[in-house]
Amino acid sequence: MANPVTERLLAFQKEMSLRGIDLYILFASDFHGSEYIGDYFKTREYLTGFTGSAGTAVILQQEAYLWTDGRYFIQAKNQLAGSGIQLQRMGEEGVPTVEDFVREHLKQGGCIGFDGRMVSAKTGEAYQKIAEEKEGRLLIEEDLAGNIWKDRPELSKEPFFLLEEKYTGLGVEAKQNLVRDKLKEEGADAHILTSLYDIAWLFNIRGNDIPHVPVVLSYLVITMEECIWFLQEDVIKEEQKSYLKEHHIQTRSYEEIYSYAASMRADAVLYDDRTVNYRIAAVLPEKVHKVIKDNPTELLKAVKNPVEIANTRKAHIKDGAAFTKFMYWLKTGIQQEEITELSAAEYLLEKRKEQEHFLDVSFDTICAYGEHAAMMHYAATEETNVRLKPEGFLLVDSGGHYLEGTTDITRTIALGPVTKEMRQHYTAVVRANFNLASAKFLHGCRGANLDILAREPLWSLGIDYKCGTGHGVGHILNVHEGPNAFRYKLQPDLKDNAVLEEGMITTDEPGVYIEGAYGIRIENELVCKKTEKNEYGQFMCFDTITWAPVDLDAIDPEAMNEKEREVLNTYHRKVYDTISPYLTEKERDWLKEYTRAI
Amino acid sequence: MANPVTERLLAFQKEMSLRGIDLYILFASDFHGSEYIGDYFKTREYLTGFTGSAGTAVILQQEAYLWTDGRYFIQAKNQLAGSGIQLQRMGEEGVPTVEDFVREHLKQGGCIGFDGRMVSAKTGEAYQKIAEEKEGRLLIEEDLAGNIWKDRPELSKEPFFLLEEKYTGLGVEAKQNLVRDKLKEEGADAHILTSLYDIAWLFNIRGNDIPHVPVVLSYLVITMEECIWFLQEDVIKEEQKSYLKEHHIQTRSYEEIYSYAASMRADAVLYDDRTVNYRIAAVLPEKVHKVIKDNPTELLKAVKNPVEIANTRKAHIKDGAAFTKFMYWLKTGIQQEEITELSAAEYLLEKRKEQEHFLDVSFDTICAYGEHAAMMHYAATEETNVRLKPEGFLLVDSGGHYLEGTTDITRTIALGPVTKEMRQHYTAVVRANFNLASAKFLHGCRGANLDILAREPLWSLGIDYKCGTGHGVGHILNVHEGPNAFRYKLQPDLKDNAVLEEGMITTDEPGVYIEGAYGIRIENELVCKKTEKNEYGQFMCFDTITWAPVDLDAIDPEAMNEKEREVLNTYHRKVYDTISPYLTEKERDWLKEYTRAI
Repeated sequence: MANPVTERLLAFQKEMSLRGIDLYILFASDFHGSEYIGDYFKTREYLTGFTGSAGTAVILQQEAYLWTDGRYFIQAKNQLAGSGIQLQRMGEEGVPTVEDFVREHLKQGGCIGFDGRMVSAKTGEAYQKIAEEKEGRLLIEEDLAGNIWKDRPELSKEPFFLLEEKYTGLGVEAKQNLVRDKLKEEGADAHILTSLYDIAWLFNIRGNDIPHVPVVLSYLVITMEECIWFLQEDVIKEEQKSYLKEHHIQTRSYEEIYSYAASMRADAVLYDDRTVNYRIAAVLPEKVHKVIKDNPTELLKAVKNPVEIANTRKAHIKDGAAFTKFMYWLKTGIQQEEITELSAAEYLLEKRKEQEHFLDVSFDTICAYGEHAAMMHYAATEETNVRLKPEGFLLVDSGGHYLEGTTDITRTIALGPVTKEMRQHYTAVVRANFNLASAKFLHGCRGANLDILAREPLWSLGIDYKCGTGHGVGHILNVHEGPNAFRYKLQPDLKDNAVLEEGMITTDEPGVYIEGAYGIRIENELVCKKTEKNEYGQFMCFDTITWAPVDLDAIDPEAMNEKEREVLNTYHRKVYDTISPYLTEKERDWLKEYTRAI
Repeated sequence: MANPVTERLLAFQKEMSLRGIDLYILFASDFHGSEYIGDYFKTREYLTGFTGSAGTAVILQQEAYLWTDGRYFIQAKNQLAGSGIQLQRMGEEGVPTVEDFVREHLKQGGCIGFDGRMVSAKTGEAYQKIAEEKEGRLLIEEDLAGNIWKDRPELSKEPFFLLEEKYTGLGVEAKQNLVRDKLKEEGADAHILTSLYDIAWLFNIRGNDIPHVPVVLSYLVITMEECIWFLQEDVIKEEQKSYLKEHHIQTRSYEEIYSYAASMRADAVLYDDRTVNYRIAAVLPEKVHKVIKDNPTELLKAVKNPVEIANTRKAHIKDGAAFTKFMYWLKTGIQQEEITELSAAEYLLEKRKEQEHFLDVSFDTICAYGEHAAMMHYAATEETNVRLKPEGFLLVDSGGHYLEGTTDITRTIALGPVTKEMRQHYTAVVRANFNLASAKFLHGCRGANLDILAREPLWSLGIDYKCGTGHGVGHILNVHEGPNAFRYKLQPDLKDNAVLEEGMITTDEPGVYIEGAYGIRIENELVCKKTEKNEYGQFMCFDTITWAPVDLDAIDPEAMNEKEREVLNTYHRKVYDTISPYLTEKERDWLKEYTRAI
């Protein structure tokens, strides 16, 4: 049987050819710059067969290419095999950026195609510039993949719910005022907000339009007087209408944003050209002054308020109890029971569901045994599912949404004997994690300044994990959130490398990935907070808020110095104190043993 | 007797008033953006009495302000006392930037004055913008301080010498070609270069127009065909004319740059608006396209070639021998001899002068005893000079220019008993220095990624040294050089935080400064080099090339972990092996003891 991807590509290239398109770009996105996306938007996946969340495809008349990052190199290689699509490993030497590639491959007077809603204004403008350089043109009105996609899923249209102020800590009015204050400060009288996370945060609502990301497909325009929400209006329940009215939120249909933008009458509109899509930006009237700035909500929602922090701590205790029960079951049951990657993930889900106010997992659980864990974002399927053996490592990266907040935790668990090298790598990862978590630093530092604290134990072994060390965490929103992160590579505009502020929550998840053999990752979440202030300035530090043991069976205490052991022992003591009240006696005894001082 | 500064300020404010200037800015610079400057240019010092190398004064009709950075807070406080000039401590909370201050204090329609040659095009344009915002104006043609400065020194006009290719590793032709290649790449057909360091590097010449910075006061314009050097032409010796002719270097008078720039006929001129002065940029014809980029020579001269590196290593061995002899004399003589800050510096200079090819010190030696060392850039004078006692710390920060290269070394030496706290701080500084020096990192890292390795041992004690951890080092040029540095604070344009490349030399000089008590700094120079390359990328590391013992009398070995002690012991073993051949028997025995393993 022919590879279905090959057939789709041929059909797609025919569509391109009919329209005179030389080069078509497919982005892994939706109309809102979301990271995870609904099935309706998965055109790149449909056309290439690659299921990773990040990756851009470029289709030429005779060839096709896919760019993805280090997290997905192994997965992409496997999924693209036989499709004829060539993998471009981003960040590796000699691999061009997509833009450079397009510039190089577009013939003079050629035509670039893409769906203008599927890409940020900033990126769209970059391709517009390339087209101009080549005296060519852009074709952005058509969703070309949609034309050949016969059994395409419907656009999601799920109901939403309101989040009480005891969970959000701040009302809608107050949030709107903060945004309007920022607009005034920036000299703008209107703001287009299309980030689904930011809209949900601003309105204190949560929905269900992206799997595990509780948002509502919608756009928002806020002016000094009005607040207009563009959404599929029939999802609004009768009793929610008064909420919207009370907060002066008008509604219009989802698609109307484009005609609204085209006839916008503001003097100056503020928007973030990294998230607002190219088509919206392209239709704005010329006389409207464009104030290109970060969404004011971005920093506001990243700096969690005390109510959100207190709630998030509660969510982590529940999540830690669930995860510890899961670890107990796994470590004590692996010899007796038949456990697979999928059944283990299922058991963990059960434990989470037993917790009060559990809503959903915060992303597809990664439960990866042995070599599967070398693929950073492996998701087990019926085809790949394997039975766990009482040896080697199982990596479990998972999290939950609770009414109180969102969690993201990774533990790598020794199911039996591990080699000396595995133990060396495991210990380095533990050191990496806690060295970063123990940082004390002056206010003004960014993730880029601190990243090396986690990376150094691996770099000193000549190993790198090829991705950021950690990401901001949304509050019952996308589990990945900016602008805070730990990554050493700097963008010239310092995006995703914000100054670390009190109240920001960032994951700390260094790892080691040995292709074909195993993967190790230990992930805790860190809350940034102020510590001493003196003549040198305001010092900052982190509180680890994730509670589950780090598997002592895989650690070589000799490879840690005294201070490092002390830090780990202190953490484990706190894990026991925090989690033990929620365990059975047997689980508690086990936890005591697995949180002992080394 | 009245404070002379007060009188000068009054006279200056009268000149301002005559011209309708509301606010005058005095920069610590010359016409070339040099860091150290000739006496002719020291208008800010003349008017404020503050002698530090960095600092900007703003004079209003009734008030005056001086901005300086952490290195100079203590010195500035002392020197401004009684002048009525208010100190603005840069970087501290609530202290506005000079620009913000000017924006706030300039009245509507007001006039800002400064000498347009004394400030970069970029900064000048920022003030131009502020004047426009206030519907005011700039007055930049006059050197207002020159008008009231009766006994002003002459503009320096010293001869220069040629540096042979065995020292530079690259001829003038080859360097010019590299620059022209870069111009082509950037679409420019001309380049204005006014950085004195870059001109000296490009022409393989060294001069004497700035104390301890062997450069020639001059400007340069290079096109695809021509190379025009604007300098005080009578400094050219007869025998040097053939050298200039051979390399197609035309000459014009120093001042002619302004008329030349005003009638420039290039299509596109590349220049660095951070170093080319505002007046030059302001007179360029409107039709000339301005390509604002780093000077191509900046990165070329920062990445030392193998000949420069090999020579620099030789210079450091000579310098290390001189410094070790000085340390021996100090440590063994302090009980017997009368030694002062000035006489100690004099002795060190003698030891350097005994070395072959010694040219000059690379900056004014900092020889600071006790509390003097808390002033980071203290220079002893007859008035401040103190006798050294057999107790506490002496900090010596010094360096030399040799035909082979430039050095910069700091050692803090215990002259006798030190307190427990001093020992704790000293040990933390040693750890800081060697933790950074031991870094292994992936290519792509900048100083900002690594800085925390040095800062963390101090930050963990709640201490900061309020300045960068290290700077690039010029090759028989300015001892401070970009674009490589170790500093955690990021400029949005990532200037002075270049990706660390093989061949870059950067100092590593963490410290502790306790006002009124003592100062500690340990400074070595690090050469960046490649180490293993594997599937994760190109790893980089540093070679320490500075050779002198770190005073074991002040170290608490218990406060270092095993790995840290091992790193220090390895360094000390190399110090002994490298330096001992150049010592007397007594010095050698002493060095053996002071490089022992701990």
